[in-house]
Amino acid sequence: MAGSPSRAAGRRLQLPLLCLFLQGATAVLFAVFVRYNHKTDAALWHRGNYSNADNEFYFRYPSFQDVHAMVFVGFGFLMVFLQRYGFSSVGFTFLLAAFALQWSTLIQGFLHSFHSGHIHVGVESMINADFCAGAVLISLGAVLGKTGPAQLLLMALLEVVLFGINEFVLLHLLGVRDAGGSMTIHTFGAYFGLVLSRVLYRPQLEKSKHRQGSVYHSDLFAMIGTIFLWIFWPSFNSALTALGAGQHRTALNTYYSLAASTLGTFALSALVGEDGRLDMVHIQNAALAGGVVVGTSSEMMLTPFGALAAGFLAGTVSTLGYKFFTPILESKFKVQDTCGVHNLHGMPGVLGALLGVLVAGLATHEAYGDGLESVFPLIAEGQRSATSQAMLQLFGLFVTLMFASVGGGLGGLLLKLPFLDSPPDSQCYEDQVHWQVPGEHEDEAQRPLRVEEADTQA
Amino acid sequence: MAGSPSRAAGRRLQLPLLCLFLQGATAVLFAVFVRYNHKTDAALWHRGNYSNADNEFYFRYPSFQDVHAMVFVGFGFLMVFLQRYGFSSVGFTFLLAAFALQWSTLIQGFLHSFHSGHIHVGVESMINADFCAGAVLISLGAVLGKTGPAQLLLMALLEVVLFGINEFVLLHLLGVRDAGGSMTIHTFGAYFGLVLSRVLYRPQLEKSKHRQGSVYHSDLFAMIGTIFLWIFWPSFNSALTALGAGQHRTALNTYYSLAASTLGTFALSALVGEDGRLDMVHIQNAALAGGVVVGTSSEMMLTPFGALAAGFLAGTVSTLGYKFFTPILESKFKVQDTCGVHNLHGMPGVLGALLGVLVAGLATHEAYGDGLESVFPLIAEGQRSATSQAMLQLFGLFVTLMFASVGGGLGGLLLKLPFLDSPPDSQCYEDQVHWQVPGEHEDEAQRPLRVEEADTQA
Amino acid sequence: MAGSPSRAAGRRLQLPLLCLFLQGATAVLFAVFVRYNHKTDAALWHRGNYSNADNEFYFRYPSFQDVHAMVFVGFGFLMVFLQRYGFSSVGFTFLLAAFALQWSTLIQGFLHSFHSGHIHVGVESMINADFCAGAVLISLGAVLGKTGPAQLLLMALLEVVLFGINEFVLLHLLGVRDAGGSMTIHTFGAYFGLVLSRVLYRPQLEKSKHRQGSVYHSDLFAMIGTIFLWIFWPSFNSALTALGAGQHRTALNTYYSLAASTLGTFALSALVGEDGRLDMVHIQNAALAGGVVVGTSSEMMLTPFGALAAGFLAGTVSTLGYKFFTPILESKFKVQDTCGVHNLHGMPGVLGALLGVLVAGLATHEAYGDGLESVFPLIAEGQRSATSQAMLQLFGLFVTLMFASVGGGLGGLLLKLPFLDSPPDSQCYEDQVHWQVPGEHEDEAQRPLRVEEADTQA
Repeated sequence: MAGSPSRAAGRRLQLPLLCLFLQGATAVLFAVFVRYNHKTDAALWHRGNYSNADNEFYFRYPSFQDVHAMVFVGFGFLMVFLQRYGFSSVGFTFLLAAFALQWSTLIQGFLHSFHSGHIHVGVESMINADFCAGAVLISLGAVLGKTGPAQLLLMALLEVVLFGINEFVLLHLLGVRDAGGSMTIHTFGAYFGLVLSRVLYRPQLEKSKHRQGSVYHSDLFAMIGTIFLWIFWPSFNSALTALGAGQHRTALNTYYSLAASTLGTFALSALVGEDGRLDMVHIQNAALAGGVVVGTSSEMMLTPFGALAAGFLAGTVSTLGYKFFTPILESKFKVQDTCGVHNLHGMPGVLGALLGVLVAGLATHEAYGDGLESVFPLIAEGQRSATSQAMLQLFGLFVTLMFASVGGGLGGLLLKLPFLDSPPDSQCYEDQVHWQVPGEHEDEAQRPLRVEEADTQA
Repeated sequence: MAGSPSRAAGRRLQLPLLCLFLQGATAVLFAVFVRYNHKTDAALWHRGNYSNADNEFYFRYPSFQDVHAMVFVGFGFLMVFLQRYGFSSVGFTFLLAAFALQWSTLIQGFLHSFHSGHIHVGVESMINADFCAGAVLISLGAVLGKTGPAQLLLMALLEVVLFGINEFVLLHLLGVRDAGGSMTIHTFGAYFGLVLSRVLYRPQLEKSKHRQGSVYHSDLFAMIGTIFLWIFWPSFNSALTALGAGQHRTALNTYYSLAASTLGTFALSALVGEDGRLDMVHIQNAALAGGVVVGTSSEMMLTPFGALAAGFLAGTVSTLGYKFFTPILESKFKVQDTCGVHNLHGMPGVLGALLGVLVAGLATHEAYGDGLESVFPLIAEGQRSATSQAMLQLFGLFVTLMFASVGGGLGGLLLKLPFLDSPPDSQCYEDQVHWQVPGEHEDEAQRPLRVEEADTQA
Repeated sequence: MAGSPSRAAGRRLQLPLLCLFLQGATAVLFAVFVRYNHKTDAALWHRGNYSNADNEFYFRYPSFQDVHAMVFVGFGFLMVFLQRYGFSSVGFTFLLAAFALQWSTLIQGFLHSFHSGHIHVGVESMINADFCAGAVLISLGAVLGKTGPAQLLLMALLEVVLFGINEFVLLHLLGVRDAGGSMTIHTFGAYFGLVLSRVLYRPQLEKSKHRQGSVYHSDLFAMIGTIFLWIFWPSFNSALTALGAGQHRTALNTYYSLAASTLGTFALSALVGEDGRLDMVHIQNAALAGGVVVGTSSEMMLTPFGALAAGFLAGTVSTLGYKFFTPILESKFKVQDTCGVHNLHGMPGVLGALLGVLVAGLATHEAYGDGLESVFPLIAEGQRSATSQAMLQLFGLFVTLMFASVGGGLGGLLLKLPFLDSPPDSQCYEDQVHWQVPGEHEDEAQRPLRVEEADTQA
């Protein structure tokens, strides 16, 4: 027996105390710093003498709701594919995202919109906060089932800060364009999570191997996540792009890219599948790579053909990643990537960044006309050439990989703190470690808890 | 054997005949009274020489769709947590809401928008009708599993009328503000249902105790309901608030409140849980209390900090209610509250009303500027002070509790009419009483019907 | 053994090669023909000197997202009711719709918006493409479980072309009105699929009878599809109607029609059900008939009463169809209609077309005022009378039935090509033919593949 009774009591208090502390601290910081912006404040808005129809709410809120559905329904249910980890998948998604969006409102606020001592919030900050929560959930996908909720909250605490700084460096210092976050969200979230998972490597994880797969119904629940992510991704990439043609074009490009990645995924899944049969894991994940791969370029003049080609490429690469690279990642690189975020967010994110380099480098005044101002303001103002924009886009990818790797490493060390509660190797991917779980059938009593205390990690 | 064959035949005709009668009567009343308003009528709209962009449709319809999703997906699936009552939970939600929205269009129309002999309808009446349907579904949560569909339709028939009158008294006679319905929807719906459940108290309900819990998959289905309610709640509270900053601020406040109630719920659930483990019932329900608690105040200048604090308080109170108060409610007060609506809608609704009293009482011309006109028109016009607004808000809560209690009592007496079909004590929470139910597995024949006629109530 | 190893290898390559070919050909055609329209192109939009608020994106995109959710979530999950065909139902919906929307962008583009050698795309083409995908999915419902994915892609390849031509004949040549597609989408999709299913008639299908029903959980998954279709149908019918009052009125009429069809369905289902018990198949499907039946007339001055009456009629007819006509359809007409599309889309579609004839015939300048221009432009311009509009609406129904029947016949012959992979009679409605399927429980090994090669169709 590893833990004395008082130590066990200490462990069970970790999650509640951490929640209370984080929520309390966040609330105090909100009280001091966060204020309505001039589009949400009753007095400021009416002072402006605007027409109500001009309120940004009407241009951004429907997209916000789609993004919100992706973060909470999409990510949450996508990860329910694990047979005995559905409560944790959807529950920890809920917890992490609810914390990350508050914390991110503060961090992004300090970095992006801190004026005269206050952070000003509205629908734009809501979307940005949800984007950051999305990055945290991507990282969650890499460590899902192998970490406790208190560990995950600490991961979010660190990751949101680094996400904000990386985003600030890219968008504000380097003038990089990344509307849908191929770099800032997907690449950052994936490699942060993968490096963190590397640090937490569990050589004895095969003790939980039998719980690592899906069952028939859990795969159907996961498809709820997949489909909601898929349908709303055009809103994700376009939520914060320039109003008018910019937002319209971004949604259109993403729509085409996703359609092509779906066909690419079905083709490759059947091609590499046993007896030509399709693999649900590929369909659930790789079909979404089309959304990731145009995250940077969908606001640009990618052309509909460009969107199809990019999406198709991403779908195929992602499927091949699930089939051939994930096993190598574990055996050679000692990275246990529960949901395959390397295939869905990592590689397609990097591809998306490179596609952004290409399309930015091809930008001309002819192709964009007066719209150049809203896509590449620095080129339009003559401050840089398309080529230097492309070079800076590439540098932005490099910066993102650095921040993600160093951050993931730090995160791993943080989560290894010995007093943090973590499931034992034999109890990974198991809801009963964290939840009171009912049986699977009416007449079945609650399953006995099978957590062997002696086996606890630490 | 309690029922003769002819009586059994009479029972099976109750639901179809009641549906046909209610739909027929509603259709006749629609034919006589309901007309397109000037924003939906082809001739009237074009006579007005408006720009199409001014049509209220574009300001309200996306919010309506979110509310619609909450009513039918959210409420429906939230109640699927019961292991053998999924068909009824989602099906009766569907039936009740489809009836309530028609009936409420008439009742609210007569009370709020009856001009020159006609009710005029458009997106605003659609949202109001869905709100009323929401209140009916809250009451359903208190009696779920213990009532037949004909009984429930009669409940809706009565409740919609009382909902409309209470709403009229509050909003029109007292000038109370209640945009998201902390009082008119949540408090009213909850206490109406709880008193009704008290009147229908079943001392022998433990005969169905084994069916009253969830199974693993039913809890996951319920999380679909939870998450859709959670993500769309900002649209619920803001759907009918003043355009521009009003709608924007309401959505933002609700977003923060929900995030904080989620952290509060996780903290308290783990704190009071056996071995520090989380309870799915709390996460499914109490995390939503943040939406309820700002139903009155989210359109006001609550401040982001105020939203966080209110949400956190609601999440904790609601969780504690599930843990400690629900058992007392049954044992001491003889109220069998199937879904715990007292914890999710009752207490947070009352708290939300009191928060509205507080925030209304603090209203100043400085804080609201010209926006005071759209939030507190009577204060802006100098007809009342902030303090008297606060007093009237408090009186509104009192009126709501009166209407709900008396209405719920009447409803209970109505539903006890001896000829109404009601499941026997041993067959509560059981789909087979009302539905043709397939087995749970491919090779399983349909389960035999286990309804013991002899045991029938009434 | 019917197939040599090389032939088996050939079969398993059908799906991947067809996907790759179709995606490749589509991409090439996109490269040559498809361009951003002036609302999505950076240069063209800004050249126009429009206000961003005027971009069609803000008037149509929220409706598009609702339609998108209906196509992928609604249709996909509605068909998950089959106990062992959930992966295929949601997966093939995903595949077919992702292909059909691309292919339809081309076909509809060539027919409707081909100017100076290019197809111009934007949110309107996205909605139209999703509509066409919807028709393909309706046809899928008739043949679900009895066809392989390569067959289905070929069906879509043909159907999209015929859909586009039929739509062109109706809307452009005949000047028929059909905003929500009672004719062009529902009637066309249903009869195309039914005739196709007739050609593919399998006399030995009872070998798979035991897999043709639902299980408890699969019915709950199907209700996800039902409810999302139901809530978003107002957006479906209104997505492309005239801006302003037109879109507003269409949504409102559809909302009422669906509410009434729900009550009609519950009434009839209980009336004809064994022991008065409700049948989940009716609720899942017939309650939606209210959306189909006002597909043509909801943009017209149908009146709220008219919407209720139409919806109620559709719900009852559809329920009776499931109960009494589906068995006859199979036994007498040799049409095996897996999802009952004749009841949900066929009969209600025809009824909807006839309702459109009636309401168009009653159109007057008084009732529509200046709005007549946007609903019946040819009547407004004096080019035809209301009566001739009604006659042409009726002729449009006739044309649609012709195109659908001939097209479905051709489709059936195409799908019978002997080299196409098709599940054997004993392996219909079985995911394992097409997918790697996990077990249903944690401790269960993957079920052995039970496809008997010897029994393969061809």
